[in-house]
Amino acid sequence: MHDAVEVIRAKRDGLELTEGQIGWIIDAYTRGVVAEEQMSALAMAVYFRGMTRGELVAWTRAMIGSGSRLSFDSLPVKTVDKHSTGGVGDKITLPLAPLVAACGVAVPQLAGRGLGHTGGTLDKLESVPGWRANLTNAEMLAQLGEVGAVICAAGDELAPADKLLYALRDVTGTVEAIPLIASSIMSKKIAEGTSALVLDVKVGAGAFMKTWEDAQELARTMVDIGTDAGVRTSALLTDMSTPLGYTAGNAIEVQESVDVLAGGGPQDVVELTLALAREMLAAVGRDDVDPADKLADGSAMDCWRRMISAQGGNPDASLPTARFDHQVTADRSGVLTSLDAMGVGLAAWRLGAGRARKEDPVAAAAGVIWHARPGDRIRAGEPLFTVLADDEARLSHGLDALADAATISTADADARPGPLVLGRVAP
Amino acid sequence: MHDAVEVIRAKRDGLELTEGQIGWIIDAYTRGVVAEEQMSALAMAVYFRGMTRGELVAWTRAMIGSGSRLSFDSLPVKTVDKHSTGGVGDKITLPLAPLVAACGVAVPQLAGRGLGHTGGTLDKLESVPGWRANLTNAEMLAQLGEVGAVICAAGDELAPADKLLYALRDVTGTVEAIPLIASSIMSKKIAEGTSALVLDVKVGAGAFMKTWEDAQELARTMVDIGTDAGVRTSALLTDMSTPLGYTAGNAIEVQESVDVLAGGGPQDVVELTLALAREMLAAVGRDDVDPADKLADGSAMDCWRRMISAQGGNPDASLPTARFDHQVTADRSGVLTSLDAMGVGLAAWRLGAGRARKEDPVAAAAGVIWHARPGDRIRAGEPLFTVLADDEARLSHGLDALADAATISTADADARPGPLVLGRVAP
Repeated sequence: MHDAVEVIRAKRDGLELTEGQIGWIIDAYTRGVVAEEQMSALAMAVYFRGMTRGELVAWTRAMIGSGSRLSFDSLPVKTVDKHSTGGVGDKITLPLAPLVAACGVAVPQLAGRGLGHTGGTLDKLESVPGWRANLTNAEMLAQLGEVGAVICAAGDELAPADKLLYALRDVTGTVEAIPLIASSIMSKKIAEGTSALVLDVKVGAGAFMKTWEDAQELARTMVDIGTDAGVRTSALLTDMSTPLGYTAGNAIEVQESVDVLAGGGPQDVVELTLALAREMLAAVGRDDVDPADKLADGSAMDCWRRMISAQGGNPDASLPTARFDHQVTADRSGVLTSLDAMGVGLAAWRLGAGRARKEDPVAAAAGVIWHARPGDRIRAGEPLFTVLADDEARLSHGLDALADAATISTADADARPGPLVLGRVAP
Repeated sequence: MHDAVEVIRAKRDGLELTEGQIGWIIDAYTRGVVAEEQMSALAMAVYFRGMTRGELVAWTRAMIGSGSRLSFDSLPVKTVDKHSTGGVGDKITLPLAPLVAACGVAVPQLAGRGLGHTGGTLDKLESVPGWRANLTNAEMLAQLGEVGAVICAAGDELAPADKLLYALRDVTGTVEAIPLIASSIMSKKIAEGTSALVLDVKVGAGAFMKTWEDAQELARTMVDIGTDAGVRTSALLTDMSTPLGYTAGNAIEVQESVDVLAGGGPQDVVELTLALAREMLAAVGRDDVDPADKLADGSAMDCWRRMISAQGGNPDASLPTARFDHQVTADRSGVLTSLDAMGVGLAAWRLGAGRARKEDPVAAAAGVIWHARPGDRIRAGEPLFTVLADDEARLSHGLDALADAATISTADADARPGPLVLGRVAP
């Protein structure tokens, strides 16, 4: 017989929680027996004390056990999923899922909505007319079998303890605890039933993890949890000091993704999509396939069109356009030495592409387009940013956030961007 | 404009909270705008990060400001109060308040009820037939003027934020944070309006503070808060490895207190009562009076009788006696080398003298009497403990807690007790 104060005090005092204590408190919290104020005190104690690998495994298992678990064992092909910790302009899931499916591997991608300065994959896809995020388990399984890729919302039955805890952490200053971040992500991914998982852990000004050390710790923690749960898990650490591609928003990011699937698109988005695709294919023993071929021969685009259609979307429909736009031009000539991902993300959010509270709607057409990337030469008067909004008042709020986002150096600076993939963590 | 997450994160990250942040969060919490789960996360962050002297002053001021403040300025004499952090057999308030009043100083003693292994002053006094703990402010002021001493319950209007926070800490593993303990005690004592305050900070196995370092830190913190609030505050650090006197319970502790007022009683209770009385008298510049004289000449006893009568009690009435009792005898001859305060406190609590939840009643006649103190010689077969309860089933629970409470050494041990007053902290 356990009680909440005993468990909180044990963690507070630096003791290792037992599997029994962890299983009990997650279950009791989900049933409402352990109060919100007790769980938030425990979360804060975890922030300070961390968790051992054994605690993490037990905690994640208890979160999974709070709901039901999907299974893709009936599929004739292997499954692999990707998770990104969130970045500005991070539309990679959109071209990646159909690309990997085109290589003959099933991609069951349960995605989320955006909160704060990073966009959500479901929000982006909902700008495609007719597309719907909510599928039943049967629909999801059928689509995986027929199309090979599905991007949809996680059902309520998947790790309900995580949903409660995530909402609690959001209002109690306990979001930034690495063990809680790692177990939250991994409980959903493991419950989802994928056989392999590739993590894209972002690091830099526009990411949740600002430092290399934190990003490495998060990646290592998640790889450990996945490995211990029997899911083949690896992580790429990728740069998020500069936003990805040339767009941050919803419809404009879908357009950029379609450009990539059509064989074009921004070079960094293509590079990261291929790097993650190769990691995913290797994870299921299919490194014999080169995903670049599937972009070039149009089969990834075919898969995208079938994936969108299967969820009610029209891949040929025009995407929504913004009612208001404004262009910002360069005030001097020189080399763009930096483009601040956080400033761009904040601007897109303020323009209406993101939400402040989880019940808020997002504006499909809102966002930011930048016309140069670090390393590019630009002349005074040339367009630097275009901001898009459905509401005129939001334009100026968005522009404020961009005020210091771009740095143009008039010196003969050499600002070639660094590598996109900074490191890799494997079991 | 503040918000709770900003304040929690600032404390979590080791920043010093501003007076504005502290004032806002205490007020918003009292009004229900800041949720319980936010306050508990903040309390846990305070546990790990501590508080600066400036934060403590602002926090205590905000707690006081959540309610109304009493004033004794209309009294012709100075006021001085005592607070004990709680110990087993700690009945000192009972003889002390009338003794200091007999020396010509007013003692407004707002007291509490017991929770856990230490008894509550109000619970003890309620074993006196007719005595009532709840007085209006007007009654309290009148009694202070006429009798000079009052021991009563704090009204609901006194630091209501503290009442909320205390209940929250109890269920969230955040009781043991020294800044929160100190500000909780001091907010009530400062709001009460006393001009001077003497703290009895207990240290040892039966106390809340087990180590000398913790007790010193708590004493120093409280003295600082009082000093900054203009209340002349000092603290004695006193030993709580051995319980005080020979009794732990309610009616039996009242009887022991009356024995002290009659000029007898246990030597340690007399010693500590006089030490605290001298500290209180010095605090208001009345060290010309020797409290020992007031015990000897019966004036302290006169004041006790008037104090009890003024609150509806009959000082001549018989105190309740227990329905069941059992005697434990020494199993060997030797010297009693130790008597564990925690074991004795737990036994008294299980026998019915204390409560597990704040809404539980207490048994007036229940408790433990010990017949020897450390240093005493005892023979096999002589009485060691008498346990008292109104419910037969409780007797055995109480006895279990006493199983290892007494250590008798058959060697020719020299177990003279150490000093009772271990140290002093002044501004």
